[in-house]
Parts: sequence; C-alpha cells; structure tokens
Amino acid sequence: MTNHLTEFMKLNLPKLEEELYSLVERISAPAQLKESMLYSLKAGGKRIRPLFVLAVCEMFHNKQQEAFTIGAAVEMIHTYSLIHDDLPSMDDDELRRGKPTNHVVYGEALATLAGDALNSLSFGVLARMQAVNPEKRVELINLLSVAAGAEGMVGGQVLDIDGESRQLNLSELEKVHRNKTGALLRFSIESGAVLSDATDSERKALVEYADHIGLAFQIQDDILDIVGTSEELGKTAGKDLESHKSTYPALLSLDGAKEKLENHYNQAIRTLQSIERDTTLLEELAEYIIKRSS
Amino acid sequence: MTNHLTEFMKLNLPKLEEELYSLVERISAPAQLKESMLYSLKAGGKRIRPLFVLAVCEMFHNKQQEAFTIGAAVEMIHTYSLIHDDLPSMDDDELRRGKPTNHVVYGEALATLAGDALNSLSFGVLARMQAVNPEKRVELINLLSVAAGAEGMVGGQVLDIDGESRQLNLSELEKVHRNKTGALLRFSIESGAVLSDATDSERKALVEYADHIGLAFQIQDDILDIVGTSEELGKTAGKDLESHKSTYPALLSLDGAKEKLENHYNQAIRTLQSIERDTTLLEELAEYIIKRSS
Repeated sequence: MTNHLTEFMKLNLPKLEEELYSLVERISAPAQLKESMLYSLKAGGKRIRPLFVLAVCEMFHNKQQEAFTIGAAVEMIHTYSLIHDDLPSMDDDELRRGKPTNHVVYGEALATLAGDALNSLSFGVLARMQAVNPEKRVELINLLSVAAGAEGMVGGQVLDIDGESRQLNLSELEKVHRNKTGALLRFSIESGAVLSDATDSERKALVEYADHIGLAFQIQDDILDIVGTSEELGKTAGKDLESHKSTYPALLSLDGAKEKLENHYNQAIRTLQSIERDTTLLEELAEYIIKRSS
Repeated sequence: MTNHLTEFMKLNLPKLEEELYSLVERISAPAQLKESMLYSLKAGGKRIRPLFVLAVCEMFHNKQQEAFTIGAAVEMIHTYSLIHDDLPSMDDDELRRGKPTNHVVYGEALATLAGDALNSLSFGVLARMQAVNPEKRVELINLLSVAAGAEGMVGGQVLDIDGESRQLNLSELEKVHRNKTGALLRFSIESGAVLSDATDSERKALVEYADHIGLAFQIQDDILDIVGTSEELGKTAGKDLESHKSTYPALLSLDGAKEKLENHYNQAIRTLQSIERDTTLLEELAEYIIKRSS
C-alpha cells in the first residue's frame, strides 16, 4: 500500500470507528441487542465503503464531520448484510473476519434482529445530520435506500442465490455484482460527491469510477476465494469452487478473471483523469482493492 | 363497527393498498423478490397503522396524497417485522392471516431478504415524497427509524424473546409492548400530526392518545389469544398460554386484563377531548381496536 493512503487510513479510520460505535452506544435499547450490533461492527473489516466516502470528500477539501456519519451509515448497512448473509438459512457461515459469526455467538433470533436494527438505524443516522441541509439529507437517504434495498444490494443477493443453482453467463454475473457489491460502493462514492457539492460532470465521472471499482472488487473477491487461504481471508476459502458457484474465474478461468480485473482497474483510473482535482487517494484506493489479499 | 369508520375504511383502504402495492411494483428488482414482498403485503391484515395516519390527517382536513405514502411506508415496516417474526428461528409460525407464512412459500433465505428490502424501501419512500418539504421528510424518516429500530419495535421484540424464558412483571411487560407494538402505532399517529402541521399541544395529545392505543391494542391481542379461535385470528390461538409467555391475562387474570384494556380505552378517549377538532374517527378507531375479534 502506498504511503498517502496508509497515512489517510491511520488518520481517519479511528475517527470513523469512534463515530460508528458511538452512534450505536448512545441509543436507548436492550443491552444484549446493542451488544450484538456492536459485536459485528467491531469485528474489524477493511472499512472500504467509509474510506471511499472520506476519500471523495478529501478530494473536494471537504472537512465536514458528516462524512464520518455517512461512512458509519453505509458500514451499518454492509454489516447488517453480512450478519444476515451468514445465517444458517443463507450462507451458513460460522467464521467471519476470523471470528465466530453473530448468530453463533448470540443465536439466530438476535442476529436477525441486530441486522434489522442496523438497517433501520442507518437511515435515522442520515436524517439526524443537523449540519447538512434537509434537501441533501433526503437525497442521501433516497440513494442509500435504493443502494441497500431490492434495487441494489438485496436484489443482488437474490440473484446471487439464483446463481448457486444454475450457471450464470457473464452478463448475468455482472448484474449480480453490480447490485450485490457495486450498489453500496457506488453509494459510498456518490454520497461523498453529494456532500461535497460536486459538479454534475464530476459526479458522473465518480459514479463511473465507482462502477469499475465495484466490479474490480468482486472479481478480486472471487480470485481470493481460489488463491487465498482461510487464514488470510478470515473466512473459509474455496467455498465458491466447492459449491459450484458462478464466479469470474469459473467463467473466464483464473487468468481471464485477472485480465478482467486489470481492465476495470485501468478504466477506473482513466475515468479519474477527467476530474480536474488531485485524485491520488482514489487511485491508490483502486490499487488497494485489486492488490488486497483479504 | 360504527358507520363513520366503516365508510372511511371503504373509501380509503383501497387507495392505501393501491399505493402500497404500486410502490413495490414499480421498483426494478428480481421478479421472485418482488413477488415475495408483495405476497406478504397482499396477505391482508387490518391496515390499522395506515388507518391511523389517514384518520389523523382527516381530522386536520388534510387531503394530501402523501398520507397514503406514509401509511404505505409504515405498513412495509409492519409487514417486514411479521415476515421475520414468523421465521423458524423466531416464532416459527406457518400460518399468518390464514395463509402460509412467507418462508413457507418462498423459503427462509428469500423471506429474510424480502423483509430486509421492505425495511430499506420504507425510508426511501418517505425520502421521495416530492410534495412534502425536505424538513418534514427528514423529521418523518427520523421518527420512523427510531420507531422501527432498536429503540422501538426491534428493541421490543428482543425484550419479548427475553420474556419467553422468564416471567416479566407488569412494568417490564408494559415496556415490551410500548416498544414492540406501541412505537409503530405512535409513529402512525404522530406522522399524521407532522404532515398536518399540528400545534405542539395537539401533537402532544395525539402522542398520549397513541400510547394508550398501543397498550390497549396489545392487551386485546393477549386476550384474543385466549378467547379467540385460530379460525378468527388467522393464526394459531392459545400459543401464548402453551409457551408460558408473559402476557396481561397471565399477570392480571383475564378479568384484570379486560379492566386494564377498558382503562386505557377510557384514557385514550379522554385525551382526545383536549383537542378542539372533530375526533369522532379517532374515537371510533379506539373502539374498533378494543372490540376487534382478530
């Protein structure tokens, strides 16, 4: 990882996590529910989505505290989706980021409810950003609702389940990932643009960058499931292959998938060049995504 | 049921349901996901929560179409909570409103995701009410987030699960129900006040009315579980007794619970008298709630 991004993470991730945890700690709710919500929020993870919100704001020299709040909201959605995804009726995973999954620790009922609570909370968190004008708040809430729900992430998960019982073709697989992973990454990047009053053309370029990043992210995920170890990944490696799941390497071979990844990376970088600002951080984030080993 | 309310329902419930279904039909999402969401939305139910939104707006002579949108949003939250509540890991119910529950028809994974999608969608629906000023929209979204999430309904469900393993006392039981049932009913009533620009004292009185309605509703639910039949209820009767669940009749005897119900009804009616408007509909709704047989 390059120095610029490392510094940026060192500076901002502790503040992001402080905001994320305190947004949950300060609510008045049953202790075991808050504990279960916080367990998964604190289970680590790369905080990629909040990093994108923050990096876009940084590019606009936007120092608003609310970038952290938006980052926390999107991380809540991401975390709830992992909790529900790991349930026995879904992926049935007992390990996530090297730790027992939420339902293993708290039981299925509480895990389901903790996910539900994080889902609802994320929208309230955006609604309560007093320093952001209400027009922007409703725009952000609308974007998050679309990205998280049936038209975005949840829709992608349904298509993904579909892809477990039959072989998808490349365009179907892209559609799965545009929704399942892409929608929330796109929200992260676009929300930074909204908060920072980006021009229409800047916003358009950032959304295009986001689309390539989303696909690159997912292709690297698929590749890591083959070349990574369970230890590195913090979850069971080789699951896709074992379950005959539709993945990029399965459709394109491992080398073909790597080429596709490189392709999306290059297009992401090219898109950034149309923005007349310092895009170093966003370039480094793109590189971080394709080079990560977990 | 009195004539005024019957007429009001006949006039408004078809419009409410049209809005509710079309909000889901118009989204771009996988067919089976939309089908699963619509299955539970269309499974009937009394639409109590939307009725309260509409009845409050009627009292203020507020004819805004957005009352139906808010009603639809709260019905989405209510419906998602039923879908998740019925899951095998939660209440494990196979029958709801006389029909097979969502997961029985669509499987647990899709049922979980349909609930998740309805949860996220409800907030987007409020965010997109173009004819309502953004200040009001963020206020409504904040209220719904609190009512639906860990501080409201979901928190109440966690306390409710707790109450299955030990005997709650009356104040604990009230707390369960203030959250589990009361919070969403309160949102329904308060959102009508917000949309209609109620004065502070009108809003305060309506919220107090809502609190009594919420408790009355739950006590009648507990009573019906004992005196109702499965056929009337459209779900298995006698489940509470069988599972030794903490309920009002279990704590207060059946007669004691009926007295408590009457009490909350009277206080709800008394609260309405402080509002200098025609409160007939809200009185009739209170009566409807305590006299219903399902």
